Amino acid sequence: MKDSRYAEAGVDIDAKAAALERARAAIRSTFTPGVLGDVGGFGGLFRPDFSSFREPVLVASTDGVGTKLKVAAAANRHDTCGADLVNHCVNDILVQGARPLFFLDYVAAGRLEPGVLQQVIESVARGCRENETALLGGETAEMPGVYAPGDYDVAGTIVGVVEREKILDGSRISAGDVALGLPSAGLHTNGYSLARRVFFEKMGRGPSDRVKGLPGTIADALLAPHLSYLRPLEKPLAENLVRGMAHITGGGFYDNIPRVLPENVDVLIRSGAWPVPPVFEVLQREGDISFEEMHRVFNMGIGMVVFIAPADLPRIAEIWTGAEQKWFAIGNVTGGGSRRVVVEPEPS
Amino acid sequence: MKDSRYAEAGVDIDAKAAALERARAAIRSTFTPGVLGDVGGFGGLFRPDFSSFREPVLVASTDGVGTKLKVAAAANRHDTCGADLVNHCVNDILVQGARPLFFLDYVAAGRLEPGVLQQVIESVARGCRENETALLGGETAEMPGVYAPGDYDVAGTIVGVVEREKILDGSRISAGDVALGLPSAGLHTNGYSLARRVFFEKMGRGPSDRVKGLPGTIADALLAPHLSYLRPLEKPLAENLVRGMAHITGGGFYDNIPRVLPENVDVLIRSGAWPVPPVFEVLQREGDISFEEMHRVFNMGIGMVVFIAPADLPRIAEIWTGAEQKWFAIGNVTGGGSRRVVVEPEPS
Repeated sequence: MKDSRYAEAGVDIDAKAAALERARAAIRSTFTPGVLGDVGGFGGLFRPDFSSFREPVLVASTDGVGTKLKVAAAANRHDTCGADLVNHCVNDILVQGARPLFFLDYVAAGRLEPGVLQQVIESVARGCRENETALLGGETAEMPGVYAPGDYDVAGTIVGVVEREKILDGSRISAGDVALGLPSAGLHTNGYSLARRVFFEKMGRGPSDRVKGLPGTIADALLAPHLSYLRPLEKPLAENLVRGMAHITGGGFYDNIPRVLPENVDVLIRSGAWPVPPVFEVLQREGDISFEEMHRVFNMGIGMVVFIAPADLPRIAEIWTGAEQKWFAIGNVTGGGSRRVVVEPEPS
Repeated sequence: MKDSRYAEAGVDIDAKAAALERARAAIRSTFTPGVLGDVGGFGGLFRPDFSSFREPVLVASTDGVGTKLKVAAAANRHDTCGADLVNHCVNDILVQGARPLFFLDYVAAGRLEPGVLQQVIESVARGCRENETALLGGETAEMPGVYAPGDYDVAGTIVGVVEREKILDGSRISAGDVALGLPSAGLHTNGYSLARRVFFEKMGRGPSDRVKGLPGTIADALLAPHLSYLRPLEKPLAENLVRGMAHITGGGFYDNIPRVLPENVDVLIRSGAWPVPPVFEVLQREGDISFEEMHRVFNMGIGMVVFIAPADLPRIAEIWTGAEQKWFAIGNVTGGGSRRVVVEPEPS
């Protein structure tokens, strides 16, 4: 349309359509056997294969990337946060024992740069492929006046499935159980408001700057991917070795672990039982942040906490060692408690 | 935490938790029998009852409210857009014949005012209740620096189900079919960037101003709810009277109707066959917008187009008349075409 007053008002429907067309190949590359139809219908169609389930329960979760996006935008890297988001969502339903079926994304901006949009969607699609999750739908919204130029937001929704009797709610966790930690790659998607304040305001640095103690640039450290724990947990879940799991996201150890604990236990986490990535040490030092707040805001190098019975430790160690998956015994469940999490400082 | 540097950086986890606690009652009020567990787990659990389905297919869609939110914020009404969003999503999967099962919302802001957040979530919950849809999960994200003070965004994802052989893809639409229109309540959730430009920039008015031709204020007209067409279409769908449907959203008649047409037909829509709400007449006049662009950007008073065989017209008329549902015969399907939609101006 040559005379489009709608485009004048800040919404270019044609440019959006062109970018989406380029992203379609990426979206199609995620299609698993359950997907019916093609990209671009009103709603995505997914025919679940529940033949191996006695009582299938759908598990769904929505999340965003938070202000990690601000770092990505400042570093002009738009090909990472989509996969971060998918992995975050996969982990969020994995802690209930669910496998992902499909994902939908929401990308909003003031004006969508077609090239940026394409990179974001391709990143979401890559995350989906790596988790065998169909990218079943999505929405790109142009909202002039809500988002500043260059800013955008990405959120997503995952839907998965779990056998009802295998739902992990933590009720099997009991005193004497062992807490294992799977390493994170960095901040994952939480604590970026504080991290940005420390690096970019307090220290006055930029994303491409280097800081003593970090192997690469600040952007390299802050944009390290949010890891998916689907693969390392497939076998342990299939063999019923897992009694409960906590995805260490916003709220850190103190808020996430209690959500899966039964009422009568506490958890003691031993700092020092795993290597804390350098980025957290720099943040703590330069931000003058307390030990407790570090463990409340950040994952401190542990992305997933897995509770198991001590008798199952040899088998899970065998599985993870065989798969070259790093892990650490980071703590214990104690009895007579009230869902309290104590993180014990490393003896100095 | 008294000494919370994270709160200083713009994220107040406790205030967010307090607002969510107040919204929990609203969320619980949406729970249908399929929901397992309570509010606040990592992912929402839904046990679908597929016992009456031979081959259930899940249908999912994500959408946002767009810049209707800017009007709501300017008018300080935060209790409408959540329901708009749910109804929009319900309609998006209804056009494929699906009934909603559950919904998840995403609310993002620079700083979340707990009172505003509560109203938004309660509005989402009301929309869910009205569509018998469980509000299974959601995320509230605080992103200082991405959203301006007072601005927020709301998006949502719906998941529904349809019997595979009853999926509506429009392939049954054929020459001679009748296009029926169900009235919209106003702009629904599309065209707000243009509408805001006309009312607030070109005309220089504010949300609480009155304009000749509108029964209430500009905000009243612009915040009229997005209607759900689930109830009026329940019986027609159950009786297999519907050959195809188009939800008239962004892109208006020209972009939405072709998405459900088979390759060899055109559709002629007769403007004048339904009453155009006053808000569109004001927009067209004051914005100096062409007839064609009006029908590309706005729904012009028709929120859903339903295609049926002429022989089924008496039965569908009986259903809708009995339910006091307004409807209009707005056009026809013609043969030998190429998915073209022509909107014929009213003879003057």
